[in-house]
Amino acid sequence: MSLEKIKAGIRDVPDFPHPGIMFKDLTTVFKNGNDLQEIASMLYDKYKETGLTKIVGIESRGFITGPILAEKLGVGFVPVRKKGKLPADTIEESYSKEYGVDIIQIHKDALNADDVVLLHDDLLATGGTMKAAYNLVKKFGVKTVYVNCLVELDFLKGRDTLEEANEVYSLIHF
Amino acid sequence: MSLEKIKAGIRDVPDFPHPGIMFKDLTTVFKNGNDLQEIASMLYDKYKETGLTKIVGIESRGFITGPILAEKLGVGFVPVRKKGKLPADTIEESYSKEYGVDIIQIHKDALNADDVVLLHDDLLATGGTMKAAYNLVKKFGVKTVYVNCLVELDFLKGRDTLEEANEVYSLIHF
Repeated sequence: MSLEKIKAGIRDVPDFPHPGIMFKDLTTVFKNGNDLQEIASMLYDKYKETGLTKIVGIESRGFITGPILAEKLGVGFVPVRKKGKLPADTIEESYSKEYGVDIIQIHKDALNADDVVLLHDDLLATGGTMKAAYNLVKKFGVKTVYVNCLVELDFLKGRDTLEEANEVYSLIHF
Repeated sequence: MSLEKIKAGIRDVPDFPHPGIMFKDLTTVFKNGNDLQEIASMLYDKYKETGLTKIVGIESRGFITGPILAEKLGVGFVPVRKKGKLPADTIEESYSKEYGVDIIQIHKDALNADDVVLLHDDLLATGGTMKAAYNLVKKFGVKTVYVNCLVELDFLKGRDTLEEANEVYSLIHF
């Protein structure tokens, strides 16, 4: 099955970005055009009937597959970025990380309360960044928020932080 | 003409990221699903006959439209990132910026000498980053390198630094 082939193509990189972390590197998948089309097709089939109006991708790896799906569905793509990277007026959300606090931002005019949003990133680990992005989207009054990652590290239980989302769906699980 | 509509949708943000710079913000275009499809369709028509095998996108804004085109063409997407962001073995290139030196990297296994490469970013300004990315790609022995940006600031003459590329093409000019 092709999802198994894609899963097998993910590269494990030990001790990145910190000692003791086994990093799941998707660049070995993305550089293969067939794999990229397969992922796009699976995500399209999953979300084509959901009435999505915006895909919100998290910097930087969520910028790769999020826009592909947005273009296929004919909906807009909105970036969530680290503090100071977006040029116009933003709203922000801070969250705790292993080594301190991070702040992410979204443009103030990026969404409307009527939008149906898919939050997208490459990987769901502890869920800290995704939960902060979820909180950002909810500040616009958005009622329907789906969450999608290409890869989910089940043992870190990131999805437990996202119980308020309409659905959390990942293509590949470890 | 639709390219004029897209051009008109780009937001000018004064004094970002530094005083005196008028930033061309494409997020106002990307959040519109029709505009995103229009851009994808124009890039597809431009490059469908060129025999591309890889699209190399420059962090982070080159990650948005580069992968869309890669998926449409059925070719791989390869990221070029700031130093320390790519997890596996890399090769790197440094270049001068207004306020010091920057280093960009690409994975050592990202390309082969036989690849036909499109280097992609959202904006071509002075060309410093794009030229460094061009040098990176050439280190693999790649013979054919196209360069594409969504927006080119003609008065900064960035394309003059890229004369060795097979072609430099931008959708929108200011």
